[in-house]
Amino acid sequence: MHRVHQEITRWLEPLGAQVRIDAAGNLRGLYPGLEASGARFLVGSHLDTVPNAGPYDGVLGVVLAVALLAGLGGRKLPYAVEVVGFSDEEGVRFGTPFIGSRTLVGRLDEDLLGVVDVEGVSVRKAIEEFGLNPAEIGQAAVEDNVHGYVEFHIEQGPVLEKLGLPLAVVDTIAGQSRMEVTFVGRANHAGTTPMELRSDAIAAAAEWINAVEGIGQAVPGLVATVGSVRAEPGVANVIAGKTSLSLDVRHAADEVRLRAIQNCTDQAEQIALRRKLSAHWKTRLNQPAVAMDPFLSRQIEEAIGRTGSKPHRMVSGAGHDAMVLAEKIPVAMIFLRTPGGISHAPEESVAVEDIAKAIECGLYLLDQLALSTIFQARMPGA
Amino acid sequence: MHRVHQEITRWLEPLGAQVRIDAAGNLRGLYPGLEASGARFLVGSHLDTVPNAGPYDGVLGVVLAVALLAGLGGRKLPYAVEVVGFSDEEGVRFGTPFIGSRTLVGRLDEDLLGVVDVEGVSVRKAIEEFGLNPAEIGQAAVEDNVHGYVEFHIEQGPVLEKLGLPLAVVDTIAGQSRMEVTFVGRANHAGTTPMELRSDAIAAAAEWINAVEGIGQAVPGLVATVGSVRAEPGVANVIAGKTSLSLDVRHAADEVRLRAIQNCTDQAEQIALRRKLSAHWKTRLNQPAVAMDPFLSRQIEEAIGRTGSKPHRMVSGAGHDAMVLAEKIPVAMIFLRTPGGISHAPEESVAVEDIAKAIECGLYLLDQLALSTIFQARMPGA
Repeated sequence: MHRVHQEITRWLEPLGAQVRIDAAGNLRGLYPGLEASGARFLVGSHLDTVPNAGPYDGVLGVVLAVALLAGLGGRKLPYAVEVVGFSDEEGVRFGTPFIGSRTLVGRLDEDLLGVVDVEGVSVRKAIEEFGLNPAEIGQAAVEDNVHGYVEFHIEQGPVLEKLGLPLAVVDTIAGQSRMEVTFVGRANHAGTTPMELRSDAIAAAAEWINAVEGIGQAVPGLVATVGSVRAEPGVANVIAGKTSLSLDVRHAADEVRLRAIQNCTDQAEQIALRRKLSAHWKTRLNQPAVAMDPFLSRQIEEAIGRTGSKPHRMVSGAGHDAMVLAEKIPVAMIFLRTPGGISHAPEESVAVEDIAKAIECGLYLLDQLALSTIFQARMPGA
Repeated sequence: MHRVHQEITRWLEPLGAQVRIDAAGNLRGLYPGLEASGARFLVGSHLDTVPNAGPYDGVLGVVLAVALLAGLGGRKLPYAVEVVGFSDEEGVRFGTPFIGSRTLVGRLDEDLLGVVDVEGVSVRKAIEEFGLNPAEIGQAAVEDNVHGYVEFHIEQGPVLEKLGLPLAVVDTIAGQSRMEVTFVGRANHAGTTPMELRSDAIAAAAEWINAVEGIGQAVPGLVATVGSVRAEPGVANVIAGKTSLSLDVRHAADEVRLRAIQNCTDQAEQIALRRKLSAHWKTRLNQPAVAMDPFLSRQIEEAIGRTGSKPHRMVSGAGHDAMVLAEKIPVAMIFLRTPGGISHAPEESVAVEDIAKAIECGLYLLDQLALSTIFQARMPGA
């Protein structure tokens, strides 16, 4: 991460940006506006990624922010532009995502600083070992002069490719529920137990997996996934006595998601009842949907239109730093087409032409915001 | 096992039996017949069991054989009775079942002697370490003077309990197929991949698990079980790209079993085709059904009837030593009711009254055979 910071700093400084690393390890490159004391607008994404990752998820959004400053060619805007490269979005090391962006909204608190990695190193200790001072974390939070954030990110899904479009504006980051569902039947000998005398936890789970799939398919924009299934004892010649499954449900509208969760647990109960076994579940996550700022999203739509592309609006099924920043400031997101929908894998790719479109769109956006009286009205400092 | 041999020997010798341990570690207790050079009839089961076992699977059949000799009260029959306690039926240590009974039909060959346990100790070495001589294995095989084998064993299923009967005669030991089936789809982000653009290997597997269940339910006496399921990557927020499953199919009629296997793989292919993923399978076991000897089975039916019970005939879904001995000699089996159908677990039990019925039935059987002209005709030595 030190080397990444050095490299991006080497790009930003010649463009006139002042670069610092905040106390949570986020890169912050400030490109001043026309007024020295003025308001600022953030553009960025995260610099970390997952193991066995591709080269675009996260860092592309930071590099695009640098490219926008380069595209300005030294031109100043009525507001400052701050390039942000978040230090930890994926949560790989500490099992807790959005550490970088939480810092900007004042949520890197004592609890989070105390979270430890597999080797017992806390977030606080990791920050110190990186050469930073946890006592200065408060200074990393955004202030009243920050009037928005825009994030470019790969779609990580197949929708734009299917539509033949390079870019989309994100409406909403979908809400997400995670549950753990367990069917408990009776383990028994696979050879000596007639079909009609079984309480087969795998067969019940299978029926439920397909019910979940049907619930997901029945509502546009809803996704419902069983990604993990574990049977016990899990051997060929024993009828499973227990099966544990994960459930992940997402939708832009919280009431749709919660109704789907209710349907899924109702189905589990009915299947268990009919098959004479029991169903149990625990909620692991219940994250409401986050709406993007309507004004910024309309401006992005207009900017995409000016590049000659149809401005598609879509929901983000994945969480992003923008979701966290939305607690404090207006945020918006622009998705880039992801070939094959493949992300978090070495095959992850983005077409050069789509990146060019994204830069074009971003420059239109910055200029539109400079001219927008609504945006100016929001920015008393500008 | 040494201690078990000592204990059973301590019971057998006072009854007039000569006990030896053959070169495969089987206990062989010979209770002579009226003629010293005469034919013999085997009664027994296995002495080994599984980890976390119950107290009846296997050893009960050996103890019942001892009880039959005790029940004779010193009376001699026209044939000798040999009590057999097989050394290794379950195959826990070497992953290969029926080592004891295979020895009696001459199939403890060089290949099997070379099989090693998890610590690299071969069957041959284990025999030597037990204090036996592998060179004498040939002498453990049954000779022409052996005219039958009967085995008492717990049912390990819920059928007799359901019927309210203590005993059953086994018609056939079901044939068994084992397969490994894999569905390969495409792993993808559970949040960003719309339902209609997925190749979900768990959802395909689930549909197939229920198809297998339906195939099993459609034919009387057929059992079809998916006992193991493993999804990759198997995490909550990723659509599974691969799911591997076990399939176990059993039936008394080989053609029924093979047709069911064909149906199962046809279904896998159709589901994969419809869902745009691929299905693959490997056959791991294809064991034909083994019919019990009709004469001995009719004699058992009659003996059960004489105890005042309805002589139910049934198929054994599990494999037994009798299945192996059937290669060389007429065999038959008697099942004892298993409360809850529970076996291979500490809760495994058998009612004392049912054991009394089994002893009564066994004594009737020995006397019937003594009087049967058909049995005498089979035993030229007697």
